[in-house]
Amino acid sequence: MHYYYGYDEFLKDSKELTERINWKFDTIIGIARGGLTLSHFLGEYYNIREVYAINTIGYENTQKLENTKVFNLPNLENAKNVLIVDDIVDSGDTLNLVLETLLKEYPSATFKSAALFYKPTASIKPNWYVQEAKVWIDFFWTVDLLGNKSRE
Amino acid sequence: MHYYYGYDEFLKDSKELTERINWKFDTIIGIARGGLTLSHFLGEYYNIREVYAINTIGYENTQKLENTKVFNLPNLENAKNVLIVDDIVDSGDTLNLVLETLLKEYPSATFKSAALFYKPTASIKPNWYVQEAKVWIDFFWTVDLLGNKSRE
Repeated sequence: MHYYYGYDEFLKDSKELTERINWKFDTIIGIARGGLTLSHFLGEYYNIREVYAINTIGYENTQKLENTKVFNLPNLENAKNVLIVDDIVDSGDTLNLVLETLLKEYPSATFKSAALFYKPTASIKPNWYVQEAKVWIDFFWTVDLLGNKSRE
Repeated sequence: MHYYYGYDEFLKDSKELTERINWKFDTIIGIARGGLTLSHFLGEYYNIREVYAINTIGYENTQKLENTKVFNLPNLENAKNVLIVDDIVDSGDTLNLVLETLLKEYPSATFKSAALFYKPTASIKPNWYVQEAKVWIDFFWTVDLLGNKSRE
């Protein structure tokens, strides 16, 4: 089952998220691609120009197991309180690895996380989220532009 | 005069932009913050996972002139054709500096640019754009989340 998550619901949930985030932060990092639009909106809302992206990629290691690598770490030498945002915390593996990688590189910064959706089976719970994910979510940024156009 | 640029118009224009971009690229870079949402949508549309962000900051130099600095350059060692995206090419200074900085660091990559809006007075014309900007544009990612809430 697919659930269509449209712009209006995103806007409502983002407002709700800002009401839940009871923390003052100076930097926002969006986990690409899923967290990019939310990081953009939050940056504008909080008037924070320090909106960065971070990338992850899945690859097979020598034991043919799926591993994830974090890259394009932003420069955080002037950051103190960093909000990591993503659209959904699903398995939690990506968020865990991003947090671990950033904390190792910037041990004196504080990192907290926010997401629109959270799956209760995830290995980590974001500090703030809005909805629990029960089915597959078709985010508007994924499906709206494709429209009915069929693509491979 | 302010022109409200809502989600529906953005979607229409983004579709138009994809029809105009007659180039095969492997990497997308969104200029933060303005280009982040568009870079997200284009990454999903073209099924490109290499969606990166780049940051710029204005600062006063020793002569008290406003300068711009580019930072958080993504790692492009595997990139060949890179599409730089922004919401609007206004003065063109940001896009020019981003292109110049990236080309200096990655001289063998090809960089082209796309934007939703372009001001004819800009110092550089993006390779592809949709509308000419005539007035100040209130993008939905800037104003929708703030709603009527007054924020200084």
